[in-house]
Amino acid sequence: MSSAAAITLLTDFGTADGYVAELKGVLVSLAPGIPIVDLSHDIPPQDIAMARLTVARYWRRFPAGTVHMIVVDPGVGTSRAAIAIASEGRLLVGPDNGVLSPALFSLDARVVQLPIDPAASATFHGRDVFAPVAARLALGESIERIGEPYTEAVRLRTPPPRRDAHGLLHGEVLALDRFGNIITNLMTRDTVGMVKIAGRAARLVHTYGDAATGELVALVGSSGFVEIAVREGSAAAALGISRGDTVVLSAAS
Amino acid sequence: MSSAAAITLLTDFGTADGYVAELKGVLVSLAPGIPIVDLSHDIPPQDIAMARLTVARYWRRFPAGTVHMIVVDPGVGTSRAAIAIASEGRLLVGPDNGVLSPALFSLDARVVQLPIDPAASATFHGRDVFAPVAARLALGESIERIGEPYTEAVRLRTPPPRRDAHGLLHGEVLALDRFGNIITNLMTRDTVGMVKIAGRAARLVHTYGDAATGELVALVGSSGFVEIAVREGSAAAALGISRGDTVVLSAAS
Amino acid sequence: MSSAAAITLLTDFGTADGYVAELKGVLVSLAPGIPIVDLSHDIPPQDIAMARLTVARYWRRFPAGTVHMIVVDPGVGTSRAAIAIASEGRLLVGPDNGVLSPALFSLDARVVQLPIDPAASATFHGRDVFAPVAARLALGESIERIGEPYTEAVRLRTPPPRRDAHGLLHGEVLALDRFGNIITNLMTRDTVGMVKIAGRAARLVHTYGDAATGELVALVGSSGFVEIAVREGSAAAALGISRGDTVVLSAAS
Repeated sequence: MSSAAAITLLTDFGTADGYVAELKGVLVSLAPGIPIVDLSHDIPPQDIAMARLTVARYWRRFPAGTVHMIVVDPGVGTSRAAIAIASEGRLLVGPDNGVLSPALFSLDARVVQLPIDPAASATFHGRDVFAPVAARLALGESIERIGEPYTEAVRLRTPPPRRDAHGLLHGEVLALDRFGNIITNLMTRDTVGMVKIAGRAARLVHTYGDAATGELVALVGSSGFVEIAVREGSAAAALGISRGDTVVLSAAS
Repeated sequence: MSSAAAITLLTDFGTADGYVAELKGVLVSLAPGIPIVDLSHDIPPQDIAMARLTVARYWRRFPAGTVHMIVVDPGVGTSRAAIAIASEGRLLVGPDNGVLSPALFSLDARVVQLPIDPAASATFHGRDVFAPVAARLALGESIERIGEPYTEAVRLRTPPPRRDAHGLLHGEVLALDRFGNIITNLMTRDTVGMVKIAGRAARLVHTYGDAATGELVALVGSSGFVEIAVREGSAAAALGISRGDTVVLSAAS
Repeated sequence: MSSAAAITLLTDFGTADGYVAELKGVLVSLAPGIPIVDLSHDIPPQDIAMARLTVARYWRRFPAGTVHMIVVDPGVGTSRAAIAIASEGRLLVGPDNGVLSPALFSLDARVVQLPIDPAASATFHGRDVFAPVAARLALGESIERIGEPYTEAVRLRTPPPRRDAHGLLHGEVLALDRFGNIITNLMTRDTVGMVKIAGRAARLVHTYGDAATGELVALVGSSGFVEIAVREGSAAAALGISRGDTVVLSAAS
């Protein structure tokens, strides 16, 4: 048993209401000396899809031994399970609603169901269930000492794009970021092509430097997905787009 | 003298303006190696009532030796005192305007008034008064070495509910949280009953799992107070409620 | 080589999209044990002027050896350089667009241009360029081991106020803070005087305690600049002011 590099936190709690404060009090009490790293408390309330995409971005960027606590939990107080996962050396704790899915597809992933203390608040498992478990994992306990093996964990996947008979790649909008970039599920190795979105066409470029200021372009973003962007502007505002809207990529060749 | 587990921060500064950054620079300079734990910088500006309720939630969740710095301070630059409190092993620093009240009701609570350096900014005691004191406390100094005993500290209390001749419990709305839950000052051990609020009736349940999706219910929340909630929805949005509005609990028995 | 007191972070990323999470994963992986201190992730998107003013507030408040990472970077993926600065014992890393200017005016400031790994994402230098460099600096490497000397760094300055023939000091609005305080570029040692702004007159006072509740006043703020404020209110809301609007200070003598 060795102690963790860090306990990271992802929630939809905001910070003003004091829920995050209570949860941190539990962590500092039970895992003294382990750094607590805030990732976000601003996931939109109860937005499982957004939380899952965010977890996919970061869970493997941290070193082995990191404990990731994720509390986006609209089902707290219902029959949804509480789980912990060990996967590629990282440990994840949270509700079994799909937010932890990215860590479930590794070959070595192990999952346990966490016991719920009858004294735990029925509305705040972050404080009374997940934080105490995160602290124990951070101090080096194995997930198997804490819960029973669990095989039914919810597995959500990013939908893959679909290639049609004409070679066009059909996808959808996954997310809009703070800068108004439109993140799609399209992936490509092409360097020349066009993305159709909301009746507009966005030229595929390598980098913002290839675009004119204000030009609508498509480029492979930092997560490997094609993004639609306006250089020094907001593509989301320009197009009035929503999550789930369709996009179509045509390569030039 | 032993050094603190952590210095926690609660402010209404937001982070974009750089005030929190300056304050952290003072802490890292004067108390190197002591972890700084952000609780919130998003308390609504100058909202003493909200800050007090938040402090009540967390101050005892942290281990003995923790230094809690709280800067929600509409009276900075007026005659309001600056104080430090030692209570149940925790140390609190902030303005004497009621935000620190939760720690004042313990039997062992001690309070001192902090000296104000004439060179301190008249508009930013967080940086020039509270942070240097928090650092000294974190390094193990006693409050008595820093200030003079002070007996006039402002004590704000959550108003208790009132039981009428018919056994009905009359209370009020204390806060609305990010999820639209309505937190009241009602407390109950009953498991069957009804809360009247804004002309609507909310059935008392144990947990969200006992409610239908979209149903308005009442349940004992994680702070021990009765909350009005809509499962997977926002009770605050559904009812158009404000802080201070009245609520009435009738037990079924 | 000795390791850093802290790595501080200032970005315009928000936290919900996961960019900050990825970047922290790199830091925890490459600089284990170095505290990460969030300063803000809420700088308005691509707002270089605001970021520069914020950096000016804090960069020297942290102890020598601190690594300041600043990523407000509308030009990512264009020809703008990536730089690191050593100045007065502090180390700064970020884009060469003016946000790091406050550290460039010290006599001992040294600047290097950072190499861009061809494998770096063209849209996210925070994760792939600046974080790895911040980690190396935090572990004690010199900037000269990481990049080549660079003499063309963008230097932005706060515009100085202008004194006219009648002794009036003409300035402008630099920023509006979360409390509605209006921060100007005026500086004064006068204690009696008047600031004209948006057709209104604000009396110069020493502290909020000298103002009536609701009164519009001017006072020297915590950054040394004259601020226009309403005691327990918002001057920005009262005056409908914008950045760049003019202000005029007349001393009474």
